[in-house]
Amino acid sequence: MLNKKEFSKKMTYAPGLPQDATFFSANKKRVTSRAVEEAAVRALKDRGVSIEDIAQIVFDLQKPFVRNLSLAMCIENVTGVLAKRELQHAILVGIELDKLAEKKLLDEPLQSLIDQDEGLFGVDETIALGAVSAFGSIASTTFGYLDKVKPRIIGELDQMKNGRVNTFLDDLVASIAADASSRLAHRVRDAEEGAFHRKMNENNRE
Amino acid sequence: MLNKKEFSKKMTYAPGLPQDATFFSANKKRVTSRAVEEAAVRALKDRGVSIEDIAQIVFDLQKPFVRNLSLAMCIENVTGVLAKRELQHAILVGIELDKLAEKKLLDEPLQSLIDQDEGLFGVDETIALGAVSAFGSIASTTFGYLDKVKPRIIGELDQMKNGRVNTFLDDLVASIAADASSRLAHRVRDAEEGAFHRKMNENNRE
Amino acid sequence: MLNKKEFSKKMTYAPGLPQDATFFSANKKRVTSRAVEEAAVRALKDRGVSIEDIAQIVFDLQKPFVRNLSLAMCIENVTGVLAKRELQHAILVGIELDKLAEKKLLDEPLQSLIDQDEGLFGVDETIALGAVSAFGSIASTTFGYLDKVKPRIIGELDQMKNGRVNTFLDDLVASIAADASSRLAHRVRDAEEGAFHRKMNENNRE
Amino acid sequence: MLNKKEFSKKMTYAPGLPQDATFFSANKKRVTSRAVEEAAVRALKDRGVSIEDIAQIVFDLQKPFVRNLSLAMCIENVTGVLAKRELQHAILVGIELDKLAEKKLLDEPLQSLIDQDEGLFGVDETIALGAVSAFGSIASTTFGYLDKVKPRIIGELDQMKNGRVNTFLDDLVASIAADASSRLAHRVRDAEEGAFHRKMNENNRE
Repeated sequence: MLNKKEFSKKMTYAPGLPQDATFFSANKKRVTSRAVEEAAVRALKDRGVSIEDIAQIVFDLQKPFVRNLSLAMCIENVTGVLAKRELQHAILVGIELDKLAEKKLLDEPLQSLIDQDEGLFGVDETIALGAVSAFGSIASTTFGYLDKVKPRIIGELDQMKNGRVNTFLDDLVASIAADASSRLAHRVRDAEEGAFHRKMNENNRE
Repeated sequence: MLNKKEFSKKMTYAPGLPQDATFFSANKKRVTSRAVEEAAVRALKDRGVSIEDIAQIVFDLQKPFVRNLSLAMCIENVTGVLAKRELQHAILVGIELDKLAEKKLLDEPLQSLIDQDEGLFGVDETIALGAVSAFGSIASTTFGYLDKVKPRIIGELDQMKNGRVNTFLDDLVASIAADASSRLAHRVRDAEEGAFHRKMNENNRE
Repeated sequence: MLNKKEFSKKMTYAPGLPQDATFFSANKKRVTSRAVEEAAVRALKDRGVSIEDIAQIVFDLQKPFVRNLSLAMCIENVTGVLAKRELQHAILVGIELDKLAEKKLLDEPLQSLIDQDEGLFGVDETIALGAVSAFGSIASTTFGYLDKVKPRIIGELDQMKNGRVNTFLDDLVASIAADASSRLAHRVRDAEEGAFHRKMNENNRE
Repeated sequence: MLNKKEFSKKMTYAPGLPQDATFFSANKKRVTSRAVEEAAVRALKDRGVSIEDIAQIVFDLQKPFVRNLSLAMCIENVTGVLAKRELQHAILVGIELDKLAEKKLLDEPLQSLIDQDEGLFGVDETIALGAVSAFGSIASTTFGYLDKVKPRIIGELDQMKNGRVNTFLDDLVASIAADASSRLAHRVRDAEEGAFHRKMNENNRE
């Protein structure tokens, strides 16, 4: 199943990437998931968004439904969704476009569509929705809610001035929070069912 | 382009449908869009949802953004989106499943998943999201917002008791309102641009 | 986190479901995932679709990309995706609608739209696409391909005559195969990267 | 409804855009749809894709279903879908990313993910799928088919060498062709139904 070609340090081709960030697969050089995940988390941080900021939103969303919910559980689920390739890629693309728009490096009229955060633009929502759909249709509705209400860091990003462009980033944060919220809900249910099945088994043994 | 086979009254095959509700296309008997649209609007009404109920939600959503918005404009846009085949089909499927669940005619465990409005079910949101995507990614986020906040008739449908099942209907109403809201926003923009281009042309002629 | 209310056998409410198929969560009686999964697999089988039939399609799709691919690996990934709640629910809804259409139990014009497999209907694709989106945008394109080309069991389902309605089922099978194909591709990549990282670690220790 | 602020030539803010490409709306300067559409079509052309190239694919797709189909009808429907804002925006974003990757102007690891056309990347499909969903779930399956089979210009774009990056463009072309194909199918149906209703009315008058 694995490519038999011997790994060689000379194959590392991307300047700026650590030596173990690329590997061979199906005769193509590829960036490892680990390198992509690290880059996605770092990109968020560089733009002022921490895992805790996002976990706070998840906490607010799930508190009414989950007894004894802790921020630590929310952080764990944010970290969990950030391990998904599709979400990592969406983060990298969206933040890159925000930064390029900030530096006025995009061609017109795209430059204006993005730096004005044009209401009918839609590609920011499309990319964020793509990442959200991996966590089910309920994550999609949670995303829509966050995108309108803009709680906490999402609202702060949306209101930033002085040439800062967050057209994609606020949607990405809403997407990550919606994903983590859905992941948490499914895991709580799985835990409940696990406890129930253990109880049933005990009853049967009695 | 059109099928040359002569239409014959004997081809009407669906009991309960008016004679002009079916026609021939590519050698298949088909239900006309007009018959499907009438059935979708009637199904909504039979379940207690009027065009005006939905238009009210559109009005609330768009009022902050559109100067001189009237309820009549909202009604016009709700009617406009109900002309879309994909939305009509979604309405017919969703309401049929609600009614079958109400009559306990579905097999288990589907019967329980629907009549309990199971939070992690998701097919209700999927069908509503499918209908909403025809109106762009922004309609999808509006849908998500309505699905959580449940304003007006959506909330009423969600709270109905006494054996009434609205698992699909509340999502469908949110979908129609989001679609109409998106349609209205695009048309307002088109009107603005039309006025702008006319002005530009006048200036050029001076 | 778990509901503290004691489980009582009297709470089992769904006739036709085994006693351990329901449990309490957030003060609602719920069907367990295990019961839903069993029902989904059984529904497929009752309609003539086995796990192996679907695994065969996955094998054809992934063979050009995965060295030493075995049917057992494909079966494992089909089983893996069938553990997802959203996919189970989509299967139950779609097959129920096919069966109801077969028995002429749906209201007109929905009955005709489904039993004629109307080309512009779309709700069958919507439900199947909803289930597929949990496995990423690439699974969505694979689904689209299978939906047009209709290989193996998908084509057989599409061609069945004598009153058999498979309007939803053929799309669902395409969805499951696309999901399993995407799951397999991601896991093969993960395995490659795991092997690469182990190799790197060995080199560093030398 | 319209913004009353007088238009002033000084408001044109985007260097490189013609004077009538921007206008005022809701107190924001905006790019007109006309300017965006022209830019999208020009961007396609600059990358070697003509309206006719895409119409050819639509022709192949719809020929088995539409009697007397002409290339002119296909061209008309490609032009029709290119008037949609969401599709225009998707084209501008995708082509911009291809061009930036070609010039090695993206940060790592995004640069490598795009210029290697990494199989599990997915954002290219997400953007193209977002544009396609405006034309219904059937357009989505057509897109998936084109994305795998890569007929005509799609395959040529996919195979280009010598530093040319078309990671997004081939998906965008598949999306436009799928949209136009769906638009054509719906319009043919509408025409059939129109002819049928006219016939019915004549019969009634006799």
